[in-house]
Amino acid sequence: MLSKEKIIKIRKSSWFSNLTTGIILFYAIALGFKTIHEIADPYGTLFYSIDMFVTVYFLVEILIKLYSEKNIKDFFKSGWNVFDFIIVIITLLPLENSSFAAIARLMRIFRVLRLLNSRPELKKIIDMLIGAIPAIVDIVILMFIIFYIYAIVGNFFFEELKSGLWKDFLTAMLTLFRVLTFEDWTDVMYEAMELYSWAWLYFVSFVIIAAFVFFNLFVAVIIDEMQKINSEQTDEQLSREEDKIDLLLEKVTQLQEEIQELKKR
Amino acid sequence: MLSKEKIIKIRKSSWFSNLTTGIILFYAIALGFKTIHEIADPYGTLFYSIDMFVTVYFLVEILIKLYSEKNIKDFFKSGWNVFDFIIVIITLLPLENSSFAAIARLMRIFRVLRLLNSRPELKKIIDMLIGAIPAIVDIVILMFIIFYIYAIVGNFFFEELKSGLWKDFLTAMLTLFRVLTFEDWTDVMYEAMELYSWAWLYFVSFVIIAAFVFFNLFVAVIIDEMQKINSEQTDEQLSREEDKIDLLLEKVTQLQEEIQELKKR
Amino acid sequence: MLSKEKIIKIRKSSWFSNLTTGIILFYAIALGFKTIHEIADPYGTLFYSIDMFVTVYFLVEILIKLYSEKNIKDFFKSGWNVFDFIIVIITLLPLENSSFAAIARLMRIFRVLRLLNSRPELKKIIDMLIGAIPAIVDIVILMFIIFYIYAIVGNFFFEELKSGLWKDFLTAMLTLFRVLTFEDWTDVMYEAMELYSWAWLYFVSFVIIAAFVFFNLFVAVIIDEMQKINSEQTDEQLSREEDKIDLLLEKVTQLQEEIQELKKR
Amino acid sequence: MLSKEKIIKIRKSSWFSNLTTGIILFYAIALGFKTIHEIADPYGTLFYSIDMFVTVYFLVEILIKLYSEKNIKDFFKSGWNVFDFIIVIITLLPLENSSFAAIARLMRIFRVLRLLNSRPELKKIIDMLIGAIPAIVDIVILMFIIFYIYAIVGNFFFEELKSGLWKDFLTAMLTLFRVLTFEDWTDVMYEAMELYSWAWLYFVSFVIIAAFVFFNLFVAVIIDEMQKINSEQTDEQLSREEDKIDLLLEKVTQLQEEIQELKKR
Repeated sequence: MLSKEKIIKIRKSSWFSNLTTGIILFYAIALGFKTIHEIADPYGTLFYSIDMFVTVYFLVEILIKLYSEKNIKDFFKSGWNVFDFIIVIITLLPLENSSFAAIARLMRIFRVLRLLNSRPELKKIIDMLIGAIPAIVDIVILMFIIFYIYAIVGNFFFEELKSGLWKDFLTAMLTLFRVLTFEDWTDVMYEAMELYSWAWLYFVSFVIIAAFVFFNLFVAVIIDEMQKINSEQTDEQLSREEDKIDLLLEKVTQLQEEIQELKKR
Repeated sequence: MLSKEKIIKIRKSSWFSNLTTGIILFYAIALGFKTIHEIADPYGTLFYSIDMFVTVYFLVEILIKLYSEKNIKDFFKSGWNVFDFIIVIITLLPLENSSFAAIARLMRIFRVLRLLNSRPELKKIIDMLIGAIPAIVDIVILMFIIFYIYAIVGNFFFEELKSGLWKDFLTAMLTLFRVLTFEDWTDVMYEAMELYSWAWLYFVSFVIIAAFVFFNLFVAVIIDEMQKINSEQTDEQLSREEDKIDLLLEKVTQLQEEIQELKKR
Repeated sequence: MLSKEKIIKIRKSSWFSNLTTGIILFYAIALGFKTIHEIADPYGTLFYSIDMFVTVYFLVEILIKLYSEKNIKDFFKSGWNVFDFIIVIITLLPLENSSFAAIARLMRIFRVLRLLNSRPELKKIIDMLIGAIPAIVDIVILMFIIFYIYAIVGNFFFEELKSGLWKDFLTAMLTLFRVLTFEDWTDVMYEAMELYSWAWLYFVSFVIIAAFVFFNLFVAVIIDEMQKINSEQTDEQLSREEDKIDLLLEKVTQLQEEIQELKKR
Repeated sequence: MLSKEKIIKIRKSSWFSNLTTGIILFYAIALGFKTIHEIADPYGTLFYSIDMFVTVYFLVEILIKLYSEKNIKDFFKSGWNVFDFIIVIITLLPLENSSFAAIARLMRIFRVLRLLNSRPELKKIIDMLIGAIPAIVDIVILMFIIFYIYAIVGNFFFEELKSGLWKDFLTAMLTLFRVLTFEDWTDVMYEAMELYSWAWLYFVSFVIIAAFVFFNLFVAVIIDEMQKINSEQTDEQLSREEDKIDLLLEKVTQLQEEIQELKKR
């Protein structure tokens, strides 16, 4: 049997993490092919074996990772590790013939999300994306209030329309989201205009207001990112310059004092 | 009865404003549920009670606010207070059975707009949005002139089309707005091309010109925001640096004079 | 009769240019109402009178402008004046009953374009828009080459499709423009995929390539504008600072020389 | 016969490269007209002659270019030359009546791509476009993972839908690309909602996540370009300034030393 040192060596080796990435990629491709029945159906057993192999490999992998920690608790301090652990455990449960079979099969897709863990640049981008959220949270709230008001007004006036696009508050919200993406929004408008000829005012104002707010959201994010960069980059150089000017000032002041002394003599 | 001091204390307490925000939020959710008939219909009395309660609460709230001012006129100096006051008064009017009943019911939605008043960040964003308008007002005028010219030309040529999309000036403007959002614009174009084979020139030129102007509007706003930030941030540091250089220059000039004196001796 | 001095005074007065702007605006609104038959038809004579009045006013206006110039040739040095002159002359020609009647009536719309001349900010924006063209001209050429290649290939493969969207080179270009605006582009694709199952490759690659080039066009314009501003604003302050540092250097060098002299003594 | 010197002179002359550009442009226009049957069909022989002439001209041109190199190997060091050579050779092969005739005819279109070689600005833009790829490659990977997960989930739930938009993994990817362009995405959603009423969650979440990632891709590229410019432009001026301040510091230090000497005397 393998000694603990050997397992730690394996866990830290680059071929181990590369192998895991490779197996995830291979599994992702296999999952893709499995959906094409002409290709997948004659090889049912092959795909079943792949599934079994990947399940076992992930179990072994996580056991190696757990075993090579000094304290098992340390393993669960990283959110990514917890995520990996949950995915592996759930896909181990014998749910194939239970009523949760569909959900269990679906959970396997999330194994592919482990790819995010394998490329540091991707983790960085996800951090960046999460970091961009605070800059837009208030604009999202504002957007929600605009949606809310328009949804209630739309439901109030257009509830009886045959298309049922305004039949309750949630449906009206969905319809407004559709209008925001410009998806056949004139069909929605023309139907409403048959009932109320002023309905174009409702739609055109919504499109302009929502687009204007969205547009400023965009600008706000760009400006926010720019400010960060400006403060990082140029300021560094400027403050180095300022330090030198401060040094100059000090030296010239000393000079003055020395000349004062010279004059006194 | 409560003394004036106690009322002022209530008015300034944070639980009072949090309670108001909470009640607005609760009311917003209730209004949403009210539109889903399966949920709302069995609880008609409940929704009526909520409505009554909120109306009374808002009345009490505005009376507290009015009473705690030194001078009632001060209350109306803030636009938001005037807005609150109008909303509360209108929803008090006994219009339920009059011909204005629909409008009165609709006015209640605007109570939700009072949420904007409860979160300072939202007020700031609205200020920002309003502040962005001057930067684009001239581009909007230009856009309007482009729309105007194209609407008159479109009405001139395509007035008789069966779809009626160009039947008068206002309808033509609405159709052009639709073309600008790319919403089934080729349907509009193909119909026009059956009459005049050159009609694609009208539509493609409109799309390119309008998109180009719109695109520059976007760039103009970004640049405008950037200039503001540049002048705020970097300039501050640069002018601090410049002040120090000025001080240096002064000191060196003094040094020169002193050495001149030394030489004369 | 009015003396030349009086006419020059009128020509330079602000009420004269405001009156012209007002009459153009009034004429623009009248043209708009004229398209709504329910409103316009009972007042046929009124609209005819407005038309006559505006024609006469514009003639008088241009005569005043011409007369108040020292040399009539000077008037035609400005492109806007030439534009105004052509519009006024063409609408004077008695074409009402000729075969050019439609064109003559259409020319009147361009009178509204004279509004651009009345607001300096609008002239500035138009200059800005024209100024933005050189930054994008090469990307437009590249875009055209992409369109060209795809149009020839599309016509080659999809010429026989029933919709006729690829029946010749120009139609294929128009179809590709439609695909670029995402307007029902999947309908075009699904039709092509019935003939060739690989057709999605043609469309998806076009959408990605064209969008990517377009996207970079956008970025190029923003960057270009930013560079201009950076060079204008910050550089001004930086070069003022640099001048002062140069002065400092000079002074310190003089100081050194003077101290050298002092030491020699 | 022409001497080698004369051929080198021709090869380096500007009229030779202008002539080539002219002939490519002329050929591009001819290819365009050839697709319009009403114009092209009566002149079949003319178009055949143009084709022959261009083929011969390109052959002669490439022979001149090859002959004027010192070493023929040098010619193939430039990617553009290799591209030119392949295009010329392939269109020389006598494939007219073989089964490759269609491909051979199609290859001629790529002759037009030689235009990119004739305008330095276009080469620069293509370099810029290629240079923009590294900044977005990780976001593209992330986008692909999002597409992948949604495609598998979509295929899992919506496989049996009559439209066949989710029938296998690749079709589901294409359908998601369509949803990303907002092209009739609600039709896809409404069909799915008939089966599962929660399907709107799948589509709205995809639209928001994909749009948010795409949006940040945009911002990332702009920021990336800006950083490059900032480091190029302002930094140059700042570092020139810094050099001068360094010189100043040195001079003032020397001054101090000299005054120290003076004092010692």
